Amino acid sequence: MANLWSTQYAGSRSQIDIASYLSGYFDGEGCFAVSISPRSTLRVGWEVRPSVSVSQNATRREVLDLAMEHFGCGTIRRDPGDKTVKWEVRSLQVIRKNVIPHFREYPLLSGKQRDVDALAEVCDLMARDEHRTPQGLISIVEIVKGMNPSGTRRFDPETIKGSVSEMKA
Amino acid sequence: MANLWSTQYAGSRSQIDIASYLSGYFDGEGCFAVSISPRSTLRVGWEVRPSVSVSQNATRREVLDLAMEHFGCGTIRRDPGDKTVKWEVRSLQVIRKNVIPHFREYPLLSGKQRDVDALAEVCDLMARDEHRTPQGLISIVEIVKGMNPSGTRRFDPETIKGSVSEMKA
Repeated sequence: MANLWSTQYAGSRSQIDIASYLSGYFDGEGCFAVSISPRSTLRVGWEVRPSVSVSQNATRREVLDLAMEHFGCGTIRRDPGDKTVKWEVRSLQVIRKNVIPHFREYPLLSGKQRDVDALAEVCDLMARDEHRTPQGLISIVEIVKGMNPSGTRRFDPETIKGSVSEMKA
Repeated sequence: MANLWSTQYAGSRSQIDIASYLSGYFDGEGCFAVSISPRSTLRVGWEVRPSVSVSQNATRREVLDLAMEHFGCGTIRRDPGDKTVKWEVRSLQVIRKNVIPHFREYPLLSGKQRDVDALAEVCDLMARDEHRTPQGLISIVEIVKGMNPSGTRRFDPETIKGSVSEMKA
């Protein structure tokens, strides 16, 4: 999966290592996130959803196509609200199989790698179904608290922990 | 200049090609620009200033340090208006010698490469002092008109061309 584009560009762009290029691109534009939303149908009352995404102005979506090709997964869709398009992967299994290994081999060189590591840790917990238990969910909330410090937070960690702790009691 | 960091990271990060990584990063975050401002002390009445820059949240400025190391030039300064830091090169000679060659060898894979090409073209004209002539300035304005389509324009191309045309007449 890694070398489709490298081969395609072997002529005029032989110098570029596509995997490194994409890591650099994601260091700037990528988003490694975990959302936690209320969901009354679940036993713990909260749904945990991991995602990896990158947005770009629609007029130069080339790198999103490149990401989809390289990672062999994800969807690209227009944001109706503005002129951007977004490449996104939301499947736990696909994030673990296609995305995380790339960022182990080609890690981000800024502090954003901490978000990658945190996402990987949450995904590992989810793969063991721990997000369905109160204690597992509390562990996930603790990890997610430290992610994307400059981003917006759509949930209050203490609210979640409070509601889950009541459940345990 | 290219391999200082590659060597430093040779242990844990042997997979990463720093030059490709930086091109990917600049594809997302970099800005290749030419500003044209009124300057009555110059014969043509307008000053042309090329620049290459990249901004980042101050909490993760690692890639800016990496860029300064890799390109062997530029300055990093805080933006007092927000929490970002910016790496920037404004010297015509340094842009031509240290920056443009990198983006020839490791071109951006999105349409932003057109900005790199346009900047290089303007720099070549400036190196021949053509920005000091009415005809040269008009050529530069024509090139700059097509750059950074999603950015803000601080000058009106027609105003510049009008004022320079009067001068030629």
